[in-house]
Amino acid sequence: MIISADIGGTQMRAAVFSVDGDTQIRQKKIATKGKDTPLQRLFNLIIEICRPGENIRAIAIAAPGPVDPKLGIIMRAPNIPEWVDFPLARLIQEKFSAPVFLGNDANLAALGEWRFGAGQGHHNLVYITISTGIGGGVILDDRLVLGERGLAAELGHVTVDPNGPLCGCGHRGHIEAISSGTGIAHYVAEQIAAGRFSILNSAGTLTARDISLAAEKGDELCQEALGRAGHYLGIAIANYLHIFNPSIVILGGGVSASGPLLFDPLHKSLRESVFAPGYLDGFSLKKAALGDDVGLLGAFVLGRSSNS
Amino acid sequence: MIISADIGGTQMRAAVFSVDGDTQIRQKKIATKGKDTPLQRLFNLIIEICRPGENIRAIAIAAPGPVDPKLGIIMRAPNIPEWVDFPLARLIQEKFSAPVFLGNDANLAALGEWRFGAGQGHHNLVYITISTGIGGGVILDDRLVLGERGLAAELGHVTVDPNGPLCGCGHRGHIEAISSGTGIAHYVAEQIAAGRFSILNSAGTLTARDISLAAEKGDELCQEALGRAGHYLGIAIANYLHIFNPSIVILGGGVSASGPLLFDPLHKSLRESVFAPGYLDGFSLKKAALGDDVGLLGAFVLGRSSNS
Repeated sequence: MIISADIGGTQMRAAVFSVDGDTQIRQKKIATKGKDTPLQRLFNLIIEICRPGENIRAIAIAAPGPVDPKLGIIMRAPNIPEWVDFPLARLIQEKFSAPVFLGNDANLAALGEWRFGAGQGHHNLVYITISTGIGGGVILDDRLVLGERGLAAELGHVTVDPNGPLCGCGHRGHIEAISSGTGIAHYVAEQIAAGRFSILNSAGTLTARDISLAAEKGDELCQEALGRAGHYLGIAIANYLHIFNPSIVILGGGVSASGPLLFDPLHKSLRESVFAPGYLDGFSLKKAALGDDVGLLGAFVLGRSSNS
Repeated sequence: MIISADIGGTQMRAAVFSVDGDTQIRQKKIATKGKDTPLQRLFNLIIEICRPGENIRAIAIAAPGPVDPKLGIIMRAPNIPEWVDFPLARLIQEKFSAPVFLGNDANLAALGEWRFGAGQGHHNLVYITISTGIGGGVILDDRLVLGERGLAAELGHVTVDPNGPLCGCGHRGHIEAISSGTGIAHYVAEQIAAGRFSILNSAGTLTARDISLAAEKGDELCQEALGRAGHYLGIAIANYLHIFNPSIVILGGGVSASGPLLFDPLHKSLRESVFAPGYLDGFSLKKAALGDDVGLLGAFVLGRSSNS
């Protein structure tokens, strides 16, 4: 058996997988925060999901934010402010006496889609998750791209317009600042504040989902906001084609569930931005096939390959 | 022995290397164009550089422009318009009955710097050559990044400003359009045409070298042009840190020989654009250590590793 866990800002999930059958046997999720510490909650979750007599060969963890997969350290975790340079792998290993592997959640989602989802059969794959932020994972020659300290493939924090809006990270014009759910909502709120008409009211907190629904009802500002996000995503994806030359780009995360109001401008600017036709030979752009389990599945792939 | 050749737009060079000693035994260069075809000239160059009795284990070729290293095809060669989807590897193989390996010249320069130059000892390396154009090569976990068809690491053709100037490839705002020698010269010519003062005259053809010299003499426009190129290079290099997390970035090509007028703004914008300090831990930015032989040395590394 391999135990995998996916630590999110609001929920943590764990699952038990059978190595032989490539199958998930059971799964459980709890809130990340509660009376006890997140670490204690994770320990309890792992204890609860195991059954007596199960032979745990490895524990693999997907965690958000920058992680050092080689040292097993969480450098910073959004929503868990006390986890700074936090040696999570060592702590779990000491508690459960099993090998522990740690990975960035978007990196592991790329592994999950590659092995079980939309990327099956591909050797060179770029995965981009677009939700409140934008994260990425890249597989080249069937290997996850990590870089020197495992910080590679931060595909949301790449400048596409140096005069663009501020990103959550404090830098200007990253694709995350423009095309993430947060970026789309900021744009709409800013335009409403500047006097543009919308059926939405910027007094409350706008979400990308509100904007998607309003756009489908014909709201011009919201349609423009989605189109703008798609346009810049097309430019960013063309960049990633020139950089990685993948045979597939997979889009995951809530925003990628948007329809043609996002995807038509995306496809148009992607086509226009690719600088040599060879990059599009046999290339496909697909939506992620796995749902909420993608992190757990990716962690399983990590645990299994690291442990074999 | 391994024969390596480096085909440029104006010159082609070939060298004989000893596999055992990692040493270059002899080298010869000729003009790429002449009375006979470039292919015939390359054949003659290879014949001339060999000595009777030498055992040729492989021939490795560095070529500019998009090449398909897996199929051994030159897709397009700047300055050799008749080479379109040109099966160079097969033609050389048939002529000399030796295994032939082909690579993009910037990719192979990365291999050369990694094995013999500024990148020795590094496992994750980004090489950027800045001359009339901008090319790149990336090594991750001691392997050259090629992508699906060998078109990866086109690091010059990445949009850093969608409202920026037109690139030689026809697309807008690529880093090559701004920070290559051509990009720097275009900017100065355009500003002179718009009425700005410079000791240079835009009526002739400006080169990056003219601009460097004028800048050193105090020409404000030329100083600004170099500063602008450096500023955008800093942004682009920060992007590559987030994308590849290398331990070293190596800058080659004529423009990288510029002094602090280019490098001070580059270092400043790089520092300001990196979004998490972990990327700079142990990181270094260095100038290329190998000179004009870098392509030949890189081709030798390719030929030796492919042949072992």
